Amino acid sequence: MDYQARQEKVRSAIGDHHLDGLVVTHLPNIRYLCGFAGSAGVLLLLPQANNVFFADGRYREQARAEVVGAAVVIGRKSPLVAAGEWLAIRGRTVKVLGIEAEHLTVGEGKLLRKTAGPGIRMRPAPPLVEQARMLKDPQEIANLRAAARLGTSLFEVALKTIRPGIKEVEVAAEMEYAARQAGAEGMSFATIVASGKRSALPHGRASSARIPARGFVVCDFGVILAGYCSDMTRTVHVGTPGAKARHIYSAVRAAQQGAAEAVRPGVRIGKVHAIARKLLSQQKLVQYFQHSTGHGVGLEIHEAPRIAAGQKEPLRAGMVITIEPGVYVPGFGGVRIEDTVAVTERGCQTFTSTTKELIEI
Amino acid sequence: MDYQARQEKVRSAIGDHHLDGLVVTHLPNIRYLCGFAGSAGVLLLLPQANNVFFADGRYREQARAEVVGAAVVIGRKSPLVAAGEWLAIRGRTVKVLGIEAEHLTVGEGKLLRKTAGPGIRMRPAPPLVEQARMLKDPQEIANLRAAARLGTSLFEVALKTIRPGIKEVEVAAEMEYAARQAGAEGMSFATIVASGKRSALPHGRASSARIPARGFVVCDFGVILAGYCSDMTRTVHVGTPGAKARHIYSAVRAAQQGAAEAVRPGVRIGKVHAIARKLLSQQKLVQYFQHSTGHGVGLEIHEAPRIAAGQKEPLRAGMVITIEPGVYVPGFGGVRIEDTVAVTERGCQTFTSTTKELIEI
Repeated sequence: MDYQARQEKVRSAIGDHHLDGLVVTHLPNIRYLCGFAGSAGVLLLLPQANNVFFADGRYREQARAEVVGAAVVIGRKSPLVAAGEWLAIRGRTVKVLGIEAEHLTVGEGKLLRKTAGPGIRMRPAPPLVEQARMLKDPQEIANLRAAARLGTSLFEVALKTIRPGIKEVEVAAEMEYAARQAGAEGMSFATIVASGKRSALPHGRASSARIPARGFVVCDFGVILAGYCSDMTRTVHVGTPGAKARHIYSAVRAAQQGAAEAVRPGVRIGKVHAIARKLLSQQKLVQYFQHSTGHGVGLEIHEAPRIAAGQKEPLRAGMVITIEPGVYVPGFGGVRIEDTVAVTERGCQTFTSTTKELIEI
Repeated sequence: MDYQARQEKVRSAIGDHHLDGLVVTHLPNIRYLCGFAGSAGVLLLLPQANNVFFADGRYREQARAEVVGAAVVIGRKSPLVAAGEWLAIRGRTVKVLGIEAEHLTVGEGKLLRKTAGPGIRMRPAPPLVEQARMLKDPQEIANLRAAARLGTSLFEVALKTIRPGIKEVEVAAEMEYAARQAGAEGMSFATIVASGKRSALPHGRASSARIPARGFVVCDFGVILAGYCSDMTRTVHVGTPGAKARHIYSAVRAAQQGAAEAVRPGVRIGKVHAIARKLLSQQKLVQYFQHSTGHGVGLEIHEAPRIAAGQKEPLRAGMVITIEPGVYVPGFGGVRIEDTVAVTERGCQTFTSTTKELIEI
């Protein structure tokens, strides 16, 4: 990973926003910028001085092994206090310090202000790191593709496992076991296996419920591989689907396909969502589609951009996003179909290629 | 779970702190107070009016099924905006609103202030819900014991799997598979399997490294069952341990046992940590013990109290905490031994009972 290039990009953006520094506290942002993958640390980006990374004693070895492009300071208290004390003594170039307002808590903000002292003014910075992270570099694209390949392979495990009477968690167990055996660091979110009426819950984590003799099973799952997340959803039907189930499935499939086909550089992001909604509206099902159409995927399972109403920004090559419309009919069941796609110069490329035909089990 | 009693307890604490309400945004606190287990929501506790829970459309069904002791409002925007707008229109009894400063971000604080309007003053509240959560009620004790029982059973899986040449992640995979098959909702944190020199990393998540022919393997793992976490660590040795390894292991074991034996109501929490340090100091190993001795366990894997230096609060019956000293010698290896114990009226009870003899594999 070219951490130095990433840091330079954000450092120059910091200057453009009339900030003398940015205190990065969001761990995925820290990992993106300097490679540190531990669970506690603070990175100080200083356009007019060397960057500094703060950790505590637990991460002494890991910080020294991983951090690129920043001096490592091991504090005796928390990394945030270490950063504040460092700023108070050595932060002469810093008058206005940017904070990540969406990630720093009110309490942490107070603590930082107190330790850094009255000479430093703090100001919420725009999401500079998140903006940089939206556009994946080639190494990230390769990592996301590899994660998606592993993630996609789990659908076959689900197909082999799903049958009436088995518990949803048992299906999740087989998928997660296969993921770990294949080298996944973990799952990118709590595996969703939602069967029968539970398939109408958009976030129906695998439960101890047994898969009924007839109905949909929504499987939404992803792995973490080399820090990067995969994300996909397939919905299958146990038993023979009736007319209503077939109608819902084909409508969601058409909406997913139509939205994905619209993905290319320059298209307004909100338009992709609008297309999914329009296609479901034509099937009189849009009232059952209450969530957004997708989200960026990278070091985090949910990151910028949101594929949602009113998003006026254009899609750009290098974005990696999900396209995942769904229809959830309370008391009946639900369907969601989701792919992860990369926006390319010419259109898009699907990372989670596997059948979207309605599979009957 | 007696959610109403929990809400009453916190509502009265709110009044004691001269607040007219508390906006609860930390999800484990929300789950504790009203039973909602989803991943987005805001609970407004109002001593002088009915409590209100805010969710978005994705959680309509789940909120109605789970929430106890609060009216459910489904907002069109985020739950926080819904809460702010509700306060602006209907929050007549609220002049001073407590916020969870350690959980609300600076950005969320601004958004809430903006939507709630100028008539409501916001003030960081003490950690009232965390304080209530420190003392587990009988139902929670039963849940924690059940989670610990399942968690403890995974050590046998580890013992069957660990051998020279196998990857750390493969050991984790077997443990996690067994956990899922036994009904765990997931792991309570990223499973640590750290072998050879990696055992000197206090937070050495299972990696693709192969277990060497000789050295320690630290296994730190836990499950989530019915929302409650388990946590335990055992360290085994592959091959015959030398004198240095034996010395480290027996020192950590003695420190862990000595600290655990000190656990009973009324003992200052910092003293438990001091005992672990003193015992390691006598073995000239305390410089390799850099973290705290333990933490509370409950709906979260790390919660109050911290078993660390300077903690003057007394232990109280109903606390459930870990006792987990460790020694980490860079370039050589490390040992950590951890039990989860409940503070009882008379002393303490270990939830993670399994051998702490040095096992050679």
